[in-house]
Amino acid sequence: MSRIKALAEVVRSGGADAMLLTGEVDLIYATGATALEGQCLIFPDETAVFVTDGRYIEYAEAVLAPQGFQVVNRTQSESGIQMVGDILHQRDVRRLMYEDDVLTVKSFAALRKHLEMDYVPVLDGITDLRACKSDEETVSVIKAQRIAEKALDMLLPELKTGITERDAAAKLNYYMALLGSEKPSFETILLFGENTSKPHGVPSDRALKPGDFVLCDFGAVVNGYHSDMTRTFAYASATDEMRTVYETVLAAQTAARNAAVADALCSDMHFAAVKVIEDAGYGEYFTHALGHSVGLEIHEMPVASPHCDQPLKAGVIMTDEPGIYLAGKFGVRIEDMLLITEGAARNLTEYPKEFRILPEQG
Amino acid sequence: MSRIKALAEVVRSGGADAMLLTGEVDLIYATGATALEGQCLIFPDETAVFVTDGRYIEYAEAVLAPQGFQVVNRTQSESGIQMVGDILHQRDVRRLMYEDDVLTVKSFAALRKHLEMDYVPVLDGITDLRACKSDEETVSVIKAQRIAEKALDMLLPELKTGITERDAAAKLNYYMALLGSEKPSFETILLFGENTSKPHGVPSDRALKPGDFVLCDFGAVVNGYHSDMTRTFAYASATDEMRTVYETVLAAQTAARNAAVADALCSDMHFAAVKVIEDAGYGEYFTHALGHSVGLEIHEMPVASPHCDQPLKAGVIMTDEPGIYLAGKFGVRIEDMLLITEGAARNLTEYPKEFRILPEQG
Repeated sequence: MSRIKALAEVVRSGGADAMLLTGEVDLIYATGATALEGQCLIFPDETAVFVTDGRYIEYAEAVLAPQGFQVVNRTQSESGIQMVGDILHQRDVRRLMYEDDVLTVKSFAALRKHLEMDYVPVLDGITDLRACKSDEETVSVIKAQRIAEKALDMLLPELKTGITERDAAAKLNYYMALLGSEKPSFETILLFGENTSKPHGVPSDRALKPGDFVLCDFGAVVNGYHSDMTRTFAYASATDEMRTVYETVLAAQTAARNAAVADALCSDMHFAAVKVIEDAGYGEYFTHALGHSVGLEIHEMPVASPHCDQPLKAGVIMTDEPGIYLAGKFGVRIEDMLLITEGAARNLTEYPKEFRILPEQG
Repeated sequence: MSRIKALAEVVRSGGADAMLLTGEVDLIYATGATALEGQCLIFPDETAVFVTDGRYIEYAEAVLAPQGFQVVNRTQSESGIQMVGDILHQRDVRRLMYEDDVLTVKSFAALRKHLEMDYVPVLDGITDLRACKSDEETVSVIKAQRIAEKALDMLLPELKTGITERDAAAKLNYYMALLGSEKPSFETILLFGENTSKPHGVPSDRALKPGDFVLCDFGAVVNGYHSDMTRTFAYASATDEMRTVYETVLAAQTAARNAAVADALCSDMHFAAVKVIEDAGYGEYFTHALGHSVGLEIHEMPVASPHCDQPLKAGVIMTDEPGIYLAGKFGVRIEDMLLITEGAARNLTEYPKEFRILPEQG
């Protein structure tokens, strides 16, 4: 019932008579259920209705009714929005809160055409609720992270000379799925050698060879909650430059973690990392923002970017992922997830990150 | 260059001075590249600009410049939209076409605040272009489908008594990835026994046992193009009711395929299947629309639903996926992808679909 209560408070503070939720992530947030489609209505009096159809009705009744949702099964001859309109009419709703951060201009126009009433944008109402994670939400993120860590341990012995980026990524995703991940947190980035200089590179047929860096940026999903970690390893051997860049990134990552305290600005984390990288002479090669929040989406607000001057709040889970990218040569990125607390940030990532040379195999 | 030309025609017919594309799928459609983020501008004179950042710049220059795009690398101190504003100002753009089917109400409001000018919605301009697939696009869908078919052949010997839905789904996804799929086309639906009655069920720890139906609804992605197929098998044994329901669904699927001719209505396909299922006495157990178009998205327009009275056009790739769902007992769905032509629809799915009992193993 707690999510219905919190959402009802958003409706009340917006002065609306009801809130309509249709976005996939908002529906998961409202219900805790990850495999439903439909329309959810939240009322200021802390009642809630979920409209769905034959594809989902068995599951919806099993998981939503116990939480206090009234579950409505629409027939095929009636659209979800028609059913919503009927319910709103019965309840005499005149001001409807809508997801201006979810509905497209086109779908909002269609909604207004179907349901003539006053509309109130939700603005940051749900984003703000979602930014600070409850203990239960944090536990799901940690479970996802532990799956990712175990999967990486399973992958490393498979990294042999000649394996392709694509096959290594396929194995990593497979191990996460076997360990209980609902899906990859995003498209796994698994790159070798010169490809590691592409921060968002896509696994290709590039085969692993001695002297390569191996960069893995990936995560698992549990109860809809995402994890996110990056590790960079040397394979078989490493040059001094590879070590220097690695240690610089690691120091930058530590500096950002030390800056990650409640009430500091999000941008403080970014600039703490920038300073270390600039002092080492690699300033121009750190080409992205330091991090982003993680939760029901892989990229949530707030972000640890140079432009984000919001204060960090306890309960935010922020990635700390500086990188140095030397085009044509190699790149290094190291990423942990930090839970912001009133004291020092809690690192949710347990996987080791000292410089490591994987043994040559195959 | 062909996509720039077609999109420029959309801009011209909308009377705009430029079109701004930011949606992931529209960017793939415009560029043919599947791993880019940024802003794309298309001008009526068939020139185009792609604004991106350090994470993507190497790749963007390699793949977009040869197609005629001017690639612009924005600095970290400037946002993509600022850069777009500068370019629009230089080109004296006063009427900008925007993706009303992609931009949220919130992001559109932010855009209008940044760039003061007249806005013209793209409406169905790009959807209509995307609905009828070129030969090149169809080839990608077929490649994805062949991967899915091979992966299913690899999975079947692994279906032994005791394997869980989750592990079987993990294996199927893994095989597709090894065979070159960029990602699963959607979250693989792989269900056993009584779970097969949930049209959008999620793989669980349910273990396979003799007498179960096994339902696999899944697809691969190649060059951003999706495939979609469902097959239902009996495991070890089958009741007469299982056979009867299966043969009814198969007959309904065939009836819908026979109705899938250019200039028929999309809804004709649905009603052709409904008639067969109703005549067999299972009408109330076919609880969803017959099918949907497939392409750069797994669900595209038009759809083969009772409400879609658009005519089918040559080049549309439509799924044909009737089902019968007996809650608590079992469900059967059989799905192929049909390419609409001027004559009989071409079935892009080659996987056999006669009633089949998989051998008991394990």
